[in-house]
Amino acid sequence: EIVDAVNLALGSGPLKGKRILVTSGPTHEPIDPVRYIANRSSGTQGTAIAKALVKLGAEVIFVTGPADAPRPAGAQVIEVQTAREMLEVATSALPVDVAICAAAVADWHIVGAKDRKLKKSKDGTPALEFGENPDILKTLSAPGEARPSLVVGFAAETNDVIENATAKRARKGCDWIVANDVSPETGIMGGTENAVTLITDAGAEPWPRLSKADTATRLAERVKEALLT
Amino acid sequence: EIVDAVNLALGSGPLKGKRILVTSGPTHEPIDPVRYIANRSSGTQGTAIAKALVKLGAEVIFVTGPADAPRPAGAQVIEVQTAREMLEVATSALPVDVAICAAAVADWHIVGAKDRKLKKSKDGTPALEFGENPDILKTLSAPGEARPSLVVGFAAETNDVIENATAKRARKGCDWIVANDVSPETGIMGGTENAVTLITDAGAEPWPRLSKADTATRLAERVKEALLT
Repeated sequence: EIVDAVNLALGSGPLKGKRILVTSGPTHEPIDPVRYIANRSSGTQGTAIAKALVKLGAEVIFVTGPADAPRPAGAQVIEVQTAREMLEVATSALPVDVAICAAAVADWHIVGAKDRKLKKSKDGTPALEFGENPDILKTLSAPGEARPSLVVGFAAETNDVIENATAKRARKGCDWIVANDVSPETGIMGGTENAVTLITDAGAEPWPRLSKADTATRLAERVKEALLT
Repeated sequence: EIVDAVNLALGSGPLKGKRILVTSGPTHEPIDPVRYIANRSSGTQGTAIAKALVKLGAEVIFVTGPADAPRPAGAQVIEVQTAREMLEVATSALPVDVAICAAAVADWHIVGAKDRKLKKSKDGTPALEFGENPDILKTLSAPGEARPSLVVGFAAETNDVIENATAKRARKGCDWIVANDVSPETGIMGGTENAVTLITDAGAEPWPRLSKADTATRLAERVKEALLT
């Protein structure tokens, strides 16, 4: 802890001078002024990753949706609501050395969200029109000058985890995918532990079930190795 | 505080022997294992009402959706997720002397919510079918032997507050409506203060802007007067 604090205060540590974007938490997509579509992400894993990277001396830009987890000390925190806002903030943060997209970004938003509360009596049963949200991971992974040297995505799956996550890695063009099984019976979504599989160009590497803090430390170490070796 | 604690410990106070149901918080309506429709209710006002009634010696059954507010000490707390679950628990709590429906209950649920995560790649843009949720306030207000002597509803409006709330009182058959303006610019939804209008058979009675705790105390006093005079 003392070493961490000194690193933080002096801006030292192995990742000194590296600029890392971490997205975290859910997004909320408004239906009307009081209703929204959300997801069960607590932001715990993304927050732990930001903390672990701060400890290693990185400059962390932490873009979070409305999450319960306390914000990571030492990171530059930017709070957003929707996927569209998250993309805007994430792309404004470029250039970065690494982008870690841990947010559970909504795939869809409601087209024409209302600025007054929908009323059952007047409006009947709503027919909500969904529009596809921008794909933040794919956008950050696209080849070009601004592409971070390392882009890490997450895949929260409820079935065929490795197959789905491997396909996601190819489809998005990111370097790594941190895949996990968020079926309710695992207790991972909203819980304190995680059991991930790291998907890289070398294949699928299952990690043991660890606290989210230890999963974050392990991922931060891998980021360090990737950047410095 | 000491008097409160003594009242609580001895089960004394002016509402001793009165059984009061309070619903509170949002409901969450699942779309799939990770996504849901929610609303911005924090549960603060409902929780404050439960506390104020406990202070007056009532036996409080507190049925809450997933809310941030700490649960009220001294109440019997039952946690639910969906509107359908809330109705089931509320009706099982009958008979009660008073029902205060402060929960921001979702009007709709998703018909055929999926037990696996919807995937953008395979499932395309979802066409969610909405079904109307049961109307808890109307159900509790329906004439009959089990009807509480006093049923209080809430109306969170963004426009034409008194007109909408007065119409809601007639439509639901409840005795009182506590109406407020939850337009984002009021800061009331999720905030610490409230500015309500009490709608009774005598008309609309605007209350000053008060803390949610003071609004609760005032409402609890009115409940006491209605029951005891």
